Formats: sequence, structure tokens, C-alpha cells
Amino acid sequence: MITVLATPGTLVAGAELALEEEEQHHLTVRRAREGEAVMLLDGAGCRGTGQLRWAGKVLSVAVDRVSREPRPPAVTLAVGAGDRERFALLAEQAVQLGATRIVPIETDRTANVATRVREGTLDKVRRRSREALKQCSAAWECAVAECVGLEQFLAEAPQGACWLADHAGSAAPSLGVSDTLTVLVGPEGGFTATERDRILSAAWVPVALGPHILRYETAALAALSTAWQARHRGDG
Amino acid sequence: MITVLATPGTLVAGAELALEEEEQHHLTVRRAREGEAVMLLDGAGCRGTGQLRWAGKVLSVAVDRVSREPRPPAVTLAVGAGDRERFALLAEQAVQLGATRIVPIETDRTANVATRVREGTLDKVRRRSREALKQCSAAWECAVAECVGLEQFLAEAPQGACWLADHAGSAAPSLGVSDTLTVLVGPEGGFTATERDRILSAAWVPVALGPHILRYETAALAALSTAWQARHRGDG
Repeated sequence: MITVLATPGTLVAGAELALEEEEQHHLTVRRAREGEAVMLLDGAGCRGTGQLRWAGKVLSVAVDRVSREPRPPAVTLAVGAGDRERFALLAEQAVQLGATRIVPIETDRTANVATRVREGTLDKVRRRSREALKQCSAAWECAVAECVGLEQFLAEAPQGACWLADHAGSAAPSLGVSDTLTVLVGPEGGFTATERDRILSAAWVPVALGPHILRYETAALAALSTAWQARHRGDG
Repeated sequence: MITVLATPGTLVAGAELALEEEEQHHLTVRRAREGEAVMLLDGAGCRGTGQLRWAGKVLSVAVDRVSREPRPPAVTLAVGAGDRERFALLAEQAVQLGATRIVPIETDRTANVATRVREGTLDKVRRRSREALKQCSAAWECAVAECVGLEQFLAEAPQGACWLADHAGSAAPSLGVSDTLTVLVGPEGGFTATERDRILSAAWVPVALGPHILRYETAALAALSTAWQARHRGDG
């Protein structure tokens, strides 16, 4: 079944849903037919089903049912603001693994990356992060924050558990089902020794995420997977 | 420090190490200098250090020290034999997360993938899997098996814990530090319902790896990460 994104807050059972231009375009390209059943997600906790309606060249959805899901536990992935294409890919995968917010962190080793994520390029990352909801069928979208320097990020002291992805760390501590978590992952090449000392002195917990040295994308995904398992230990 | 791959079993402290042609090429491209210190890995448990030696256009390494690491616990990643470029990328990441063997599984939904992994293309996957040791500094390489059909794979009944990556499963059971594990991950589009029933009837344990529906690459990495954490619970 095709999944269609709705503007947040617009899903109402029994109503006719107007579609954003981009969604109409996607459906037209996929040759969606009148009456075709679709799944609906608004990225703000609502999930629904409906049927497509063509009126001339304009597509809308007759909404059948809508259900609401509670907001998932807050998981922030703060990761070096390196190459923007790799960052966008990482954001797509992070959505699948339950990240609720992604923060691009400016570090010593991202400063000279010519293709790095910058303010002007974040809208594309946001679009791809939102598009990723379709594939993983998540009801809540993942926010993508503005770029922020490491010092400022540490000064703003996130609440809840704070993990630093670190090869020299220990296995992950357990995590309550609704605990807030922030995971900090260095850029390609890692944090510098000075940055790492600074992070550890701000009481971040170094957590090892695998047996070997990980690429930053792998570390970020392993951290999210680890967090999810840490919340659900004992279910198995 | 540059890492150089040695032919398995050739690392001897105090000896002169001849290098494979591909490694000589890499070092030449990187303009490696006479006397430069390098790290050595043979992929068969030996790790060493040494200095580069040029003799005309031929590079070798004067080996200083060699240490041996025990074989890590066996973790087989059996994953749908889909697009070969994605498969090779997945293999590289799987090495970082401790896979010791990768098996490409032929399934209903890989049969029609034009670019799928096949016997003739596995050498490239093997090369990339071996090259990945350099980046993650692992002492043991990850074997890449021949393609095998799902039925035959199930009939050969792997030993140890058998997990099926499955959105409808439970969180991962715990795992002893040296337990053998095989994780089975469907191809793009997943296993068919018939295949899934067949796998479950062969007593594979369905394990959920995240809050949402995962792409198969993400599921494979999450499974490896989960396995590593399941072995190390309580260390944190």
C-alpha cells in the first residue's frame, strides 16, 4: 500500500484531505488510481487510512480512519556536521531507528569539510528525514535542528542520559522506557583529544558500541539500536 | 598511522614482510616514505607494527612487534543476496560491528534483482570486506560465503542462537560472551509470508531491532549491534 504524508494536524476521519504539492507529484509519478487505498502519516502522531480521489488533475484523500500514537521517548542524535549527502543518508536511517531529533555539531574536524552540512542545506535534510517516515511507517517525524558548535551544545546541557559514542567506553547502561537520551557522535576522524576531554569533563558517559573502531555513521546507528535495546531489555 | 594488510600467517617479529601487490600499490599512491611506521593486520588474528622499506620500486615492512588475538565469537550475518553494491557496502559495515561470516541468501525477492550478488561477483565483496579491516583495526577478517538458497541454508541448521530480524518479534534475548550466533535478515521487500513461516517453523527466534520497519541494511547493522550489546550487558 502506498503511504502518503499529510500536513501535521490535518488528519480527520471522514474528511477530505488536501495533499501537499510534493505528495501529489509523487502519486502522479506512481500512477496512483482513483479509489486506491493509501496509508496516511502526518509526522505529528497521527496515522490513518483512506482512498485517493482525483478531481481533474488534483489529488486528495477521503480519510477513513485516524488513530493517534503517543510521542515516543526523546532520543537526540548529535553528530558531527560533515558531508551533507552522508548526513542526509544518516538522517534517513536514524529515523528508522527511533531518533526524534538530529543536531549537526560543528567540530574541529568538520570545519574544513567543503561539502559540510550548513544552515542553507538543512531543508533538504529535513525533507529527506520526513520522506523517510513513509518507508519505516513512523507516526512521529524526526526534527533536524540548526547546526551548533560543540561548545555551545555542551553549554546548553541536554537533559536525561548523555552518552558519548567512544571506542574506549563501556557497554551501554540500561535506560528506562521513557528516559530522555542524547547521544553524541564525533565526525569523520573523530573528536580531537581536546574535544573529547571537554566532553568527558561535562559528564557525558563514554559508551562502546561495538568490538572495533566504527565509522561515524555506523556508530550513530549502533547507538540508536543500543538505546532501543537498552529500553526493552527483559522483554525477550 | 597507515595500516597495511599482510597475507594471513606471514607476520613474524624481526622478519622482513613481503607485501601483496595491491598493498604496494596503495602505499605508493599514498606516497609512503622509507622508514615510515605502519600498523600491520593479517586478518587471521595477528596484529603488528613495523617500518616501511623501499628496495628500488619494491616495498616491504621490517616487522617490529607482533601480537596475537583470540578468535572472536562467531557471528554469522545471513542476508538477502540483493544488489551487489549495497551488499558490499553492508559487508564493510558488518565487519566494523563484529560479523565473522556473511552469507548471501537467495530468496524469492532477490531472484529478479538484475544487479544481485552472484558467485562471480563475490570476490569483490571479499576484497572490500578485507579492506574494511584497515579502517576498523580488526585482527580477524570476516569470511564471505558462497550464495545459498534459503531452503538449503535452513536445512544446514546453523549451531548456536538463531535470530530472525523481524519487526513483529521481541527484544533480543541475552547472549553468552562466546555464544555462536546467526542472524537472518530478509532482502529488500522482506521475506515472503511463506518464507517467514518456513523460517519460524525451523525454530528461528524473531527479534525486533527497533521501533519501526527497517531497511534490510539498517536491520543487519542493528542486529550486529544488538548482538554485541547482548553479550556485554552488565559491563556498563
